[in-house]
Amino acid sequence: MAVTLAELVDRLGGELLGDGTRSIRQIAPLDRATADEIGFVAQTKYLAQLANTGAGAVILPPDARDACELPRILTPNPYLYFARVSALLNPPPRPPAGIHAAATVAPDAQVEADASIGPGAVVGAGARIGARSVIGPNCVVGDAATIGADCLLHANVTVYRGCTIGDRAILHSGCVVGSDGFGFAPDEGRWEKIPQIGRVVIGNDVEIGACTTIDRGALEDTVIEDGVKLDNLIQVAHNVTIGAHSAIAACTGIAGSTKIGRHCTIGGAAMIFGHIEIADGTRISTNTLITKSLPKAGTYTSALPFSEHEVWQKNAVHMRNLDKLVKRVKELEKKLRELESK
Amino acid sequence: MAVTLAELVDRLGGELLGDGTRSIRQIAPLDRATADEIGFVAQTKYLAQLANTGAGAVILPPDARDACELPRILTPNPYLYFARVSALLNPPPRPPAGIHAAATVAPDAQVEADASIGPGAVVGAGARIGARSVIGPNCVVGDAATIGADCLLHANVTVYRGCTIGDRAILHSGCVVGSDGFGFAPDEGRWEKIPQIGRVVIGNDVEIGACTTIDRGALEDTVIEDGVKLDNLIQVAHNVTIGAHSAIAACTGIAGSTKIGRHCTIGGAAMIFGHIEIADGTRISTNTLITKSLPKAGTYTSALPFSEHEVWQKNAVHMRNLDKLVKRVKELEKKLRELESK
Amino acid sequence: MAVTLAELVDRLGGELLGDGTRSIRQIAPLDRATADEIGFVAQTKYLAQLANTGAGAVILPPDARDACELPRILTPNPYLYFARVSALLNPPPRPPAGIHAAATVAPDAQVEADASIGPGAVVGAGARIGARSVIGPNCVVGDAATIGADCLLHANVTVYRGCTIGDRAILHSGCVVGSDGFGFAPDEGRWEKIPQIGRVVIGNDVEIGACTTIDRGALEDTVIEDGVKLDNLIQVAHNVTIGAHSAIAACTGIAGSTKIGRHCTIGGAAMIFGHIEIADGTRISTNTLITKSLPKAGTYTSALPFSEHEVWQKNAVHMRNLDKLVKRVKELEKKLRELESK
Repeated sequence: MAVTLAELVDRLGGELLGDGTRSIRQIAPLDRATADEIGFVAQTKYLAQLANTGAGAVILPPDARDACELPRILTPNPYLYFARVSALLNPPPRPPAGIHAAATVAPDAQVEADASIGPGAVVGAGARIGARSVIGPNCVVGDAATIGADCLLHANVTVYRGCTIGDRAILHSGCVVGSDGFGFAPDEGRWEKIPQIGRVVIGNDVEIGACTTIDRGALEDTVIEDGVKLDNLIQVAHNVTIGAHSAIAACTGIAGSTKIGRHCTIGGAAMIFGHIEIADGTRISTNTLITKSLPKAGTYTSALPFSEHEVWQKNAVHMRNLDKLVKRVKELEKKLRELESK
Repeated sequence: MAVTLAELVDRLGGELLGDGTRSIRQIAPLDRATADEIGFVAQTKYLAQLANTGAGAVILPPDARDACELPRILTPNPYLYFARVSALLNPPPRPPAGIHAAATVAPDAQVEADASIGPGAVVGAGARIGARSVIGPNCVVGDAATIGADCLLHANVTVYRGCTIGDRAILHSGCVVGSDGFGFAPDEGRWEKIPQIGRVVIGNDVEIGACTTIDRGALEDTVIEDGVKLDNLIQVAHNVTIGAHSAIAACTGIAGSTKIGRHCTIGGAAMIFGHIEIADGTRISTNTLITKSLPKAGTYTSALPFSEHEVWQKNAVHMRNLDKLVKRVKELEKKLRELESK
Repeated sequence: MAVTLAELVDRLGGELLGDGTRSIRQIAPLDRATADEIGFVAQTKYLAQLANTGAGAVILPPDARDACELPRILTPNPYLYFARVSALLNPPPRPPAGIHAAATVAPDAQVEADASIGPGAVVGAGARIGARSVIGPNCVVGDAATIGADCLLHANVTVYRGCTIGDRAILHSGCVVGSDGFGFAPDEGRWEKIPQIGRVVIGNDVEIGACTTIDRGALEDTVIEDGVKLDNLIQVAHNVTIGAHSAIAACTGIAGSTKIGRHCTIGGAAMIFGHIEIADGTRISTNTLITKSLPKAGTYTSALPFSEHEVWQKNAVHMRNLDKLVKRVKELEKKLRELESK
């Protein structure tokens, strides 16, 4: 697949400088791009990368208008433009529409005619699969679950009964939507299961990573709002709400009933307590444990800096004795005051 | 499905006050319960929640006997009672008994007649599936594996060959029972695999969360005792034993050959070293790293408190220099003593 | 299956002392080995374990030549020898060669005649499955993916389109190879997907644990070199390289574009920032966060030691106030100097 620069500008906007007939077949980083590939520079401070590039064209910010002789497209957000060129040149492969002979679809499931149900996929009773959606091989969509239009479920995804997913969702292999929340009532040393009768409700334009797990609500629903992006191996417990357009990196866990605001970004392996609220626009760093509500947006961190092991050993022992150290300092301050006052 | 209060008390015990013919269709939190729903108050300090409820009935502790006019059931453990009412009103949907046409069951597998094997499920040679157990769509039960009676394997569960699971287990999608333990012998810079010839042996009434992984033993078995509840995305390494009725929250990892006691509760994202023993009844906090045996029950913690990022940056640098700080304090103490003794 | 000591030495080397006709059926730890089982002692300091063993034979280091009367094999690396004996006695069960009737293999996929494709497995268009490889039940191998010779994919593994895996790989259930990297361009508060057009390229002799996820590259490939061993529930982000013969324990996360050297060992639940380089032979401890490149091999650690909860509470408050404490110490030092100089 190839496209000329003129066609790109016609479809995606931007200002074209130079030869609009230049044909582009792929995107690439500048240092390895070839004559039929297009690269980009996001900010003027990286313009030096243009010096030795073999790229056939480049996407630049407007203030880098004269930074090179190459055919170029000027746009305020070159990275975004680059993403859109890539999407144009690399459309996801689409399996043929229809239900594969090796799929099992309940007689009363509603599958749009142009949806694709892969081999080994199972679609339960009363489930609905929207227009142009792809249900990959060996996926299981439970009874009465709903998948919107233009969704892509890669292989081996599980959506439990009754859960609902909006349009344009991408679910990666191994992810699980709608498993039971971890709810038990103690009974004299045993745990008695509390039925989890809520659902998972997922908005539009959501992406869910491989082996990420989202539990259904205990009584009410777990909610993932529009535009949320979840990386791999994330745990979302029952009754959590994740606000629209928040992005969460891999290995993070969110405990039950917590409300994450909109437009939050959460680093990898963060852990967030249950029953708290995180303000819109909050940033949480990698490996950070959030133990209480964050009513004010900001960046929050709790990671322990690493050291060479021997250095760490010397320091670590003191971490367990900080309270004593503070008392020693207090005592020093008191004695010094006494000495000074003599 | 609906049940009267009189029927509830008849089945589940408790003392009924008020109209026993009141019909209940569902459980709900008090603040959104409607006339055919029942709520609960676990402790008298929460009785104010009764003020504006629309619930048709309520479950209360005995000392709240006169806390409202609503039809009510008195019981020492309202939360447990609530769980049981919910279980009664929300029985898990049961697929029809029998082997689905799209399942693959080895000729010599023993599947009880009233068990249910879903579409795409694979049951290996010599495997046994107990009475009334449900093997969900696309599950794989390996050769010679044993699943007890009344188990529920949700879709896409994997049980490796030879592993054994007791009665009434619930396994969530994506969980893996019996993968090889991480065992290798170093050989001049390469790793040579040590066959993992133990099994995973799981007791009765165990629940295993989505994408939780339990490795088989190297020589002897990995053991999960009765009543253990494991949340999602937990790693249980080879030869671990988890004692009866312990509950472990999501994202936790337990390294090889460790013995967790009975009735332990372990918070999310805890990490527990290998080859140690944890006493019965121990509580381990979220994000806590346990590096040695805990012979005495108690609550153990090692999480670093979070701060705003700028505050954290100022503090973090000192964490790597605590040993120097302690030396400075020691020097101060020495000098002060010298001054004082003058 | 059984083998005599003479046969063992014939196949695996080592020096035989005592009765070479002794027949061995299994390996076992010395404290529970029986007469047809063989045990081992790795180092002379553990020789006391020989005192009460019921083992029929034992593997010893050369300097323990006379440590017991049992038939014995002397070898410089008893643990490695033990692993090889175990591999000999415990060959992994092999399903029959051929494509199971309940598998779905694309007409143009190339499956070697002696490979085995299990029930429910799906092999995509143009995919290649090498000689003697086993594709377990309900695995999905995407279009144009390549699996080498002598590989073992346990049940429910997913390999995305275009990814390539070398010879003798072992992939455990639930693992995912080739899911999209977590790449989005911000667009006025929304996230726009950046197509992930790289692949995952995996060398020879790699083992990948259950529910471990390896994302495909954004533009170039994610690379796992020969002999790498990955435990369960590990996240490998896009464009990461893991150098040959590195071993990584469970629950670890590696962020995008990071290069892990060769022969590294990384403890469980480590988290490694993106865009950094780790030197060959580096050791990273459990729960350690690596935030910058490690150009020099060594052992690096950042774990916070645990305490009883009450002790932790007293210390934790000071962790957020270390900077103030250091200022107090500085002030004390200044005042003391003033006092001393009087």
